[in-house]
Amino acid sequence: MFELRFEAASLLKQIIDAIKELTDQCTIEVSSTGLALQAMDSSHVSLITFKLKAEFFASYRCDRTLNLGLNLKVLNKLLKTVSNTDKATLRAEDDGDQLKLIIESPRRTTTFDVKLIDLEAEVLNINTSEPKATIKMASAEFKQICADLLPLGDTLVMEITKDGISFSVTGSDTSGTVTVRTDAEPAEDEGARTEIQLQEPLTISFALRLLSQFTKATPLSPTVELRVSSDQPLCVSYEIGTDGHGSIQYYLAPKIEDEETVEPTATSAVVDDDDE
Amino acid sequence: MFELRFEAASLLKQIIDAIKELTDQCTIEVSSTGLALQAMDSSHVSLITFKLKAEFFASYRCDRTLNLGLNLKVLNKLLKTVSNTDKATLRAEDDGDQLKLIIESPRRTTTFDVKLIDLEAEVLNINTSEPKATIKMASAEFKQICADLLPLGDTLVMEITKDGISFSVTGSDTSGTVTVRTDAEPAEDEGARTEIQLQEPLTISFALRLLSQFTKATPLSPTVELRVSSDQPLCVSYEIGTDGHGSIQYYLAPKIEDEETVEPTATSAVVDDDDE
Amino acid sequence: MFELRFEAASLLKQIIDAIKELTDQCTIEVSSTGLALQAMDSSHVSLITFKLKAEFFASYRCDRTLNLGLNLKVLNKLLKTVSNTDKATLRAEDDGDQLKLIIESPRRTTTFDVKLIDLEAEVLNINTSEPKATIKMASAEFKQICADLLPLGDTLVMEITKDGISFSVTGSDTSGTVTVRTDAEPAEDEGARTEIQLQEPLTISFALRLLSQFTKATPLSPTVELRVSSDQPLCVSYEIGTDGHGSIQYYLAPKIEDEETVEPTATSAVVDDDDE
Repeated sequence: MFELRFEAASLLKQIIDAIKELTDQCTIEVSSTGLALQAMDSSHVSLITFKLKAEFFASYRCDRTLNLGLNLKVLNKLLKTVSNTDKATLRAEDDGDQLKLIIESPRRTTTFDVKLIDLEAEVLNINTSEPKATIKMASAEFKQICADLLPLGDTLVMEITKDGISFSVTGSDTSGTVTVRTDAEPAEDEGARTEIQLQEPLTISFALRLLSQFTKATPLSPTVELRVSSDQPLCVSYEIGTDGHGSIQYYLAPKIEDEETVEPTATSAVVDDDDE
Repeated sequence: MFELRFEAASLLKQIIDAIKELTDQCTIEVSSTGLALQAMDSSHVSLITFKLKAEFFASYRCDRTLNLGLNLKVLNKLLKTVSNTDKATLRAEDDGDQLKLIIESPRRTTTFDVKLIDLEAEVLNINTSEPKATIKMASAEFKQICADLLPLGDTLVMEITKDGISFSVTGSDTSGTVTVRTDAEPAEDEGARTEIQLQEPLTISFALRLLSQFTKATPLSPTVELRVSSDQPLCVSYEIGTDGHGSIQYYLAPKIEDEETVEPTATSAVVDDDDE
Repeated sequence: MFELRFEAASLLKQIIDAIKELTDQCTIEVSSTGLALQAMDSSHVSLITFKLKAEFFASYRCDRTLNLGLNLKVLNKLLKTVSNTDKATLRAEDDGDQLKLIIESPRRTTTFDVKLIDLEAEVLNINTSEPKATIKMASAEFKQICADLLPLGDTLVMEITKDGISFSVTGSDTSGTVTVRTDAEPAEDEGARTEIQLQEPLTISFALRLLSQFTKATPLSPTVELRVSSDQPLCVSYEIGTDGHGSIQYYLAPKIEDEETVEPTATSAVVDDDDE
């Protein structure tokens, strides 16, 4: 049997929201060490990974490793009305075809039995060499920047130096640039300061529509980390919890503009298919 | 002449809202004792009754019993922007064809003349024998339960015992059950406690879409009473005011599933046509 | 070069909102004395003028008079997410084809380059003889009155006496009248009192849909002034700031109902084309 309990049902809802933005269905692996998920977006251009360790949960039990195929649209609908004080339990039998989702409110208990779905497992091998630049900034600020520039066009150019980072989009009639400086006075909340570690200045382009989808994970973490290299996929990483217990990470290959603006497919650019 | 005054125009708005959910047009009977209305929903499956005694109003006058045919969509539109401090007066001449609606704000007076419509009066005879079970619960909680289960399917099964009540819907891929216990610790506000009086355990099904429409009356009352029997229509009752001055009640025949899931028509199942 | 700075970017947003309601594109004249704009609505029935003096701005520079052709829909989109603490700078070169819009937030700077458009300049001559009646009232109240009556029909009849003003619409099934009295006790905020100056009682009709569009300027000012005459266009005027530094004014010719309800064209009724 597998069973875990979220003290805040709203956290489960936020996790589903952040994954659902990229794919309607996914397979989540539950094992004695925790939860893990890898999935590509429906257009196979970007990749999402999600991890949450068993230690994160007040109560966690997993007798045998299971692959649970979930319809995230359905789960999202069921979690729509959870409030901050609700608790959520997930449960599955070792050889069952259902996931049990139990929402406990102060005065009532709601139990949903959700049919599991069969999905082909994709095991993807993610390249995780050292990035050329690492940017840490307030997640709400990154979200705002993506939202502000999205109406102008789809190619976001990031220019990173030691002093700051600029995000630019050149549209047909309007172009826009947002500049964030690292030497800006620290804001009230320390987490909001922008920090950049880099080996050398970098200029690199990404599909803004996808970056903007990644910011759906903003409620999960006050900060976001962007790991950037010119020759490998960008990693946009949100921590879950405060003790390194979990994270949601999105991977997106850079846009290569010089040759016919062909969009790199994720299969070739983001991941190597695992043949082992 | 007929004239009455609502100290809170918003209450008039809530009453119109609760009736409009079932029918666009209705005939309201105004007499020396108060207001009364009976109407069937547009699909003739459920029934609504509304009563409000003359004593409820600070000012009430009715020289002669009148049947006022109202277009509720129009009234709803006119009341859309009333605020909590507005007062509302309704007035009609004995032989007029208009209803006057006067909204008084601190600094302005708005008068609407609304044409009355001719509707065939339906006098319906409602069966009001003693219910097998009576459930009193927070109206907001009942509304939430209906809203949570509605996406799963349209047949709501209620299982009532002395210890509590469960509401279940079995959908194609997902099924859900909400359980409310009577022994749950009393919540902060006493009205929120669930109380059940019953003669014997009952299991009975209803069309959830209609139940869910009834919860539009939630703003009128902190509690709702469900009167359930296996062989007669469910009554969902909301009190208006605190002294038994008025109520809105919805009637819905149980769903009978065993023979071809034919939906019972209200004419046969909810009411007896009055031949007297 | 031209450059000015709004201490509150939200004010720039409100101005764009108020103008955009009538026209998507407009030419704004910037000179050493300030900003000025005249535009007709897209159906050429009403007219808008906007003025804001150089003194209004903490920082203002204009070396040479420029006519800047703006796409207001684009500007509106760029300003959608400005917050109250943001500052906005507008800048244009003397012979450039771009407007620079710079939004400064505490921690980031956003720069937009917006292409200017070529528009035929309309110089219109507005008749500004003494009005027969001048009404000053809370802008929010005027907005509410327009919104309340709009669903009933499009011809608003204003009846102005020394004691008050009534706004009426006669629809097919429903008619409505809002009465505002000048002798009403002064409300908490003094600006909310309705004041009327008039030479003789007036009854006059206007297209309510357009009046209702004018109220988009409500956030700019707590009061609105209506200047009414029977033989010339109504002027609906909103002050910007408190020292007579600026205003937005809308002009609308009365509706003439007696002969075939022909809608007067603005060219003939609101303005005289300037032949000088």
